[in-house]
Amino acid sequence: MPKAPLPDDVAELFRQPNPAVVAVLLPSGAPMSVATWYLVEDDGTVLLNMDAERARVSWMKEHPEVALTALKDGEWYTHVSIRGRVVRWEADEAAAMADIDRLARHYTGSEYRNRERARISCWVEISNWHGWGAAKAD
Amino acid sequence: MPKAPLPDDVAELFRQPNPAVVAVLLPSGAPMSVATWYLVEDDGTVLLNMDAERARVSWMKEHPEVALTALKDGEWYTHVSIRGRVVRWEADEAAAMADIDRLARHYTGSEYRNRERARISCWVEISNWHGWGAAKAD
Repeated sequence: MPKAPLPDDVAELFRQPNPAVVAVLLPSGAPMSVATWYLVEDDGTVLLNMDAERARVSWMKEHPEVALTALKDGEWYTHVSIRGRVVRWEADEAAAMADIDRLARHYTGSEYRNRERARISCWVEISNWHGWGAAKAD
Repeated sequence: MPKAPLPDDVAELFRQPNPAVVAVLLPSGAPMSVATWYLVEDDGTVLLNMDAERARVSWMKEHPEVALTALKDGEWYTHVSIRGRVVRWEADEAAAMADIDRLARHYTGSEYRNRERARISCWVEISNWHGWGAAKAD
């Protein structure tokens, strides 16, 4: 897999509100995967935001290695995958709620509807990427 | 994550030609993920088929643990994830080409176009599953 940073055309695709799946490690070291929203920050890190009570939070704190695949909506032969590590967590409730609102606006155009449950944010620093279809490396 | 087998309604969704992402482990133990076709066999195992020269083949032979998330096409809030292990490989060229044709027909309605490169198949035995949206566990 080529090293970061992503070339401009791949970065442009990756910044879209694409359907995505994130893979993390269980305490056993086995992978688990789940659909996710994500958002590329100006510094190139990838924001993820979860329910603060989710088991995945502790798993990702134990094993910070993350992989994420974004599928181009309606044309998923074109896809971009990244690998990296969680380099920062943000558990402050107001800050994490602002982050899920940024994600919700990116994907839905509206604020996040569920205001009842605490959220937590983390940021993934991309080490490697891989593209296919229109995002294939030259 | 609930243990296998999947309940009937989740199994029915999972059998569709859904956009999907598979996560495997690198030799380092870090996860990597990539978009994939998959097919649920009558015995409940999940067929995956790759270019036989892909590095992923050796990685999966070293670490047979696999996770896969299938997104409902056009409505990806509904998604199904499974975890499991590769329990069988099939490297015979004619057999593996028949498998990629089964996958291609499932997803595209036609045989696989690239007949030039050798393929390899493997089957994942599902240990656990997790659903969301219309596939959420009760």
